[in-house]
Amino acid sequence: MYRSHTCGELRSSHINNEVTLSGWVQKTRDKGFVVWVDLRDRYGITQLVFDEERSDPKILEKARDLGREFVLQVKGTVIERTSKNPNLPTGDIEILVTQLHVLNESLLPPFTIEDKTDGGEDLRMKFRYLDIRRNPVKENLIFRSKVTLEVRNYLTKQGFIEVETPYLIKSTPEGARDFVVPSRMNEGQFYALPQSPQTFKQLLMVGGLDKYFQIVKCFRDEDLRADRQPEFTQIDCEMAFVEQDDILNAFEGLTRHLLAEIIGVETGEFPRLTYDEAMRRYGNDKPDIRFGMEFGELNEVAKNRDFNVFNSSELVVGIAVPGAASYTRKEIDQLIDWMRRPQIGAKGMVYVKYNEDGSFKSSVDKFYNQEDFTKWAKHTGAKPGDLICILSGNIAETRTQLSALRMEMAERLGLRNPKEFAPLWVVDFPLLELDEETGNYHAMHHPFTSPKPGQLELLDTDPAAVRANAYDLVLNGNEIGGGSIRIHDKDTQATMFRHLGFTPEKAKAQFGFLMDAFQYGAPPHGGIAFGLDRLVAILGGQETIRDFIAFPKNNSGRDVMIDAPAFIDDAQLKELHLKLDIQT
Amino acid sequence: MYRSHTCGELRSSHINNEVTLSGWVQKTRDKGFVVWVDLRDRYGITQLVFDEERSDPKILEKARDLGREFVLQVKGTVIERTSKNPNLPTGDIEILVTQLHVLNESLLPPFTIEDKTDGGEDLRMKFRYLDIRRNPVKENLIFRSKVTLEVRNYLTKQGFIEVETPYLIKSTPEGARDFVVPSRMNEGQFYALPQSPQTFKQLLMVGGLDKYFQIVKCFRDEDLRADRQPEFTQIDCEMAFVEQDDILNAFEGLTRHLLAEIIGVETGEFPRLTYDEAMRRYGNDKPDIRFGMEFGELNEVAKNRDFNVFNSSELVVGIAVPGAASYTRKEIDQLIDWMRRPQIGAKGMVYVKYNEDGSFKSSVDKFYNQEDFTKWAKHTGAKPGDLICILSGNIAETRTQLSALRMEMAERLGLRNPKEFAPLWVVDFPLLELDEETGNYHAMHHPFTSPKPGQLELLDTDPAAVRANAYDLVLNGNEIGGGSIRIHDKDTQATMFRHLGFTPEKAKAQFGFLMDAFQYGAPPHGGIAFGLDRLVAILGGQETIRDFIAFPKNNSGRDVMIDAPAFIDDAQLKELHLKLDIQT
Repeated sequence: MYRSHTCGELRSSHINNEVTLSGWVQKTRDKGFVVWVDLRDRYGITQLVFDEERSDPKILEKARDLGREFVLQVKGTVIERTSKNPNLPTGDIEILVTQLHVLNESLLPPFTIEDKTDGGEDLRMKFRYLDIRRNPVKENLIFRSKVTLEVRNYLTKQGFIEVETPYLIKSTPEGARDFVVPSRMNEGQFYALPQSPQTFKQLLMVGGLDKYFQIVKCFRDEDLRADRQPEFTQIDCEMAFVEQDDILNAFEGLTRHLLAEIIGVETGEFPRLTYDEAMRRYGNDKPDIRFGMEFGELNEVAKNRDFNVFNSSELVVGIAVPGAASYTRKEIDQLIDWMRRPQIGAKGMVYVKYNEDGSFKSSVDKFYNQEDFTKWAKHTGAKPGDLICILSGNIAETRTQLSALRMEMAERLGLRNPKEFAPLWVVDFPLLELDEETGNYHAMHHPFTSPKPGQLELLDTDPAAVRANAYDLVLNGNEIGGGSIRIHDKDTQATMFRHLGFTPEKAKAQFGFLMDAFQYGAPPHGGIAFGLDRLVAILGGQETIRDFIAFPKNNSGRDVMIDAPAFIDDAQLKELHLKLDIQT
Repeated sequence: MYRSHTCGELRSSHINNEVTLSGWVQKTRDKGFVVWVDLRDRYGITQLVFDEERSDPKILEKARDLGREFVLQVKGTVIERTSKNPNLPTGDIEILVTQLHVLNESLLPPFTIEDKTDGGEDLRMKFRYLDIRRNPVKENLIFRSKVTLEVRNYLTKQGFIEVETPYLIKSTPEGARDFVVPSRMNEGQFYALPQSPQTFKQLLMVGGLDKYFQIVKCFRDEDLRADRQPEFTQIDCEMAFVEQDDILNAFEGLTRHLLAEIIGVETGEFPRLTYDEAMRRYGNDKPDIRFGMEFGELNEVAKNRDFNVFNSSELVVGIAVPGAASYTRKEIDQLIDWMRRPQIGAKGMVYVKYNEDGSFKSSVDKFYNQEDFTKWAKHTGAKPGDLICILSGNIAETRTQLSALRMEMAERLGLRNPKEFAPLWVVDFPLLELDEETGNYHAMHHPFTSPKPGQLELLDTDPAAVRANAYDLVLNGNEIGGGSIRIHDKDTQATMFRHLGFTPEKAKAQFGFLMDAFQYGAPPHGGIAFGLDRLVAILGGQETIRDFIAFPKNNSGRDVMIDAPAFIDDAQLKELHLKLDIQT
């Protein structure tokens, strides 16, 4: 038996007990006549003591030689500490060690195993097994485990069945790139790894399972943006005999349950915004509503004057930044420069200071008077002391730019409190999205998304106006889940495929099995998928998903710890009926 | 709202309620003046009734046209049935339908959606989404979901953390073939899909997580034997600061819990047999101990007489088949023919009938007397009425053949009751296995398996004799789990690699990251992995794992439903820096 207790367990009540502990050397302090060792395991830290008076001299000598991260097994007596440490749960006691067994030595770790380490990101990733010994990473992994179990228990109580769908499936060129897997037994053919179990969960609905979920790895071979992983985890869900509201209610229930059980935060009914409303009020389809600064549209009070910039703009829109009227000219110029960076791309920004005395001072004083500004203040909800920031241009770009400003100002003002949670549904997404490059429309969600009732006809005349039974769950400015009611009859599906530019042959080649299945009595159905990595990070009050993944990959899709991907040998290639095709 | 109740829910207490149901048409019976429709969903079947007296004529006409597997939504009144069906939970009531809405039509399904279907295996697999509508398949999937949740809750209560390990890892030529995944972003390089998360779970132990589990898909590119899948699911577990007994106790606890909670079967302490003992008593390292027929070794009572077949054999060994003394000469000859088939490969079989009157009749009466046979009966535990079946030859082959006979006779005698559960541990497996072809030894489990204490020296002198801290959990003649205590110090690991024929360079190339990790304070650790597909099938009282997998692949590794694997287009190949290398 390697231990009678963990290193986080012993208290005053254990004093005089004989105990056995195992763990890692966090640090040693050698005062000559006495040596203290902090022994650490998953559960905490316990102080070991060795001294000239009470310890076997050989054991004392051995204790002096212990290096950081050595693995020990010790036996000893729990004694009261003379100077207690109130910051440590075990701080009232220490162990007077009578037997010391070095289970394993350790090289000096390349960074300190402390909450705040001296190791940079790259080093931590290369030695991830040491990084996991650090409390913050360890706690994140434990937190993730807790969240997933809670999801499973909740959904099971609601009658959902977890079904494992296959990982070796078929490549579907739609959407992002698939990772493929050459088949040795089927010469020249490939499996694909699923980007999501989308078609399988729909087949399960055809199969009558009516409430399905799965916590499942998905794969996307994309050029990685920051904080994206080629493999990621989804909470994937589908229900049959449901309308949109049934799904929103079911998964609002799940989310509310998680917030209450895991974080202890009670939330009321989630607001439901249409996509159009979200864009109008926040310039964003995943608005952060922990704070205000809602958009005020100013067309009717700012256009048709002598200011041509506004007159020639499709949209004039502003936000009132609380308490920012005190910004100096220099600070405002810096903000305008920030807005002009290519990442945002604003051409400029008009501002109005709403002074504490009720007067206005603006960069467009030449064109507008105090009465105008009063109206602007009303439209943007500005109060004395606020700074009204106004952008103009075409609708889509202007909203995106102002949304970026809104988020930035919230960040600067400390309004994005990670311990506060403001979920909402965004509903009625557009069915189709225009591909600017090709001029073609493609499915905003996926080609099985159902248009809203009665809108199918609009596909021919005004495709961009067609709204879908599609919805996102948004939490603190992040899309944490999204889904739709699916098309369940083959006529509608055929119409959709036609509008998405699929020939019947191409549709059959790619989705034939699903279309076949739909001929045998597909029920009405719909679903949702949550990005688990993101959900867990946000629930954990953090931004970076990588800190919630045990072994993440870097931005080139590499696992720098195991050094993968890697070359394979020629025999293996030959068995797979493959040759490399490398440009040298 | 598509339904107020499910099709399995309504009872007498609901009579006179107005309800809405949705589901599939199981069957219709048209008696002219009255039409009955059985409506089915995941939860059960409810009878709908339409008749000339009470129904709207239009609805009655519509009901006559319903085909099997049409999807309906109906509204109506719950009424008492005149002839009740006690075999159906809803058999006391039926629905007098007032509104009938066909949600979707259906082609005639290619096989009947009944517990006993007329569809063959191939057809059922091609239309798996229809197969899943059948109760036996649906119930198996629900059962699987229940088992996995129970495993997760139990292990979590025991302090285990579920950690997701990566799927895109590095190819390790050791063991079975990897499936590989070409990397687009890392030209010419490949990821591999994990055969198991073995190295990652060991790294988690190095990382201090001390109790890990994961229910996880694993991949093996093997030529598929019957009832093997290229992707399969493991319950993968690892613990640190443990000895073998800690692991056996922990997972005996899990197994006992599952048997009690899921099946309602209470089991005592599991027997623990050494590998050597299992081979001696059952000729098998995964013995089915639901029944007796233990091996009786007869060397000392059968050799050194005039019967040369026995004299020249390394082993003479028999079993007593209960009640089979009544076998006719013809039946025994058929049994001997069965043993001689190439699958078993016995050269012959000696038998002794232990007659009810206490006398013996044997095929070797010429060489042995009644006194000899009395001894044989004692060694094999035979009673009057039993048939003693005896094989001889070299130890390994003879045991394997007799084990096959033991299983066959148990099957014929109905002793393999799937509702009875007899778990046991087989421990102390050999560390190494001789590869007959190459004459080299390789690791029986994997190269990280720890030899039993003090046996490391034997590696040089008698490698086959070295026993490992390796164990299997066996249930009803199936290995459902297996694992080992791992080597945690790099010197022992280096010794092992040397004996397994790894050069230091090759070891470093393949397992470098693990060996590096072990330099930073690896704790003593070990683990186990359960084959979930098999475990669930056995707990479900069945033999075939395919019936417990939602979308299984066939023996060529194909998913015949989605028709994968498949060819991919040239552009995709080019992006992956690959060319096909096909012999035409």
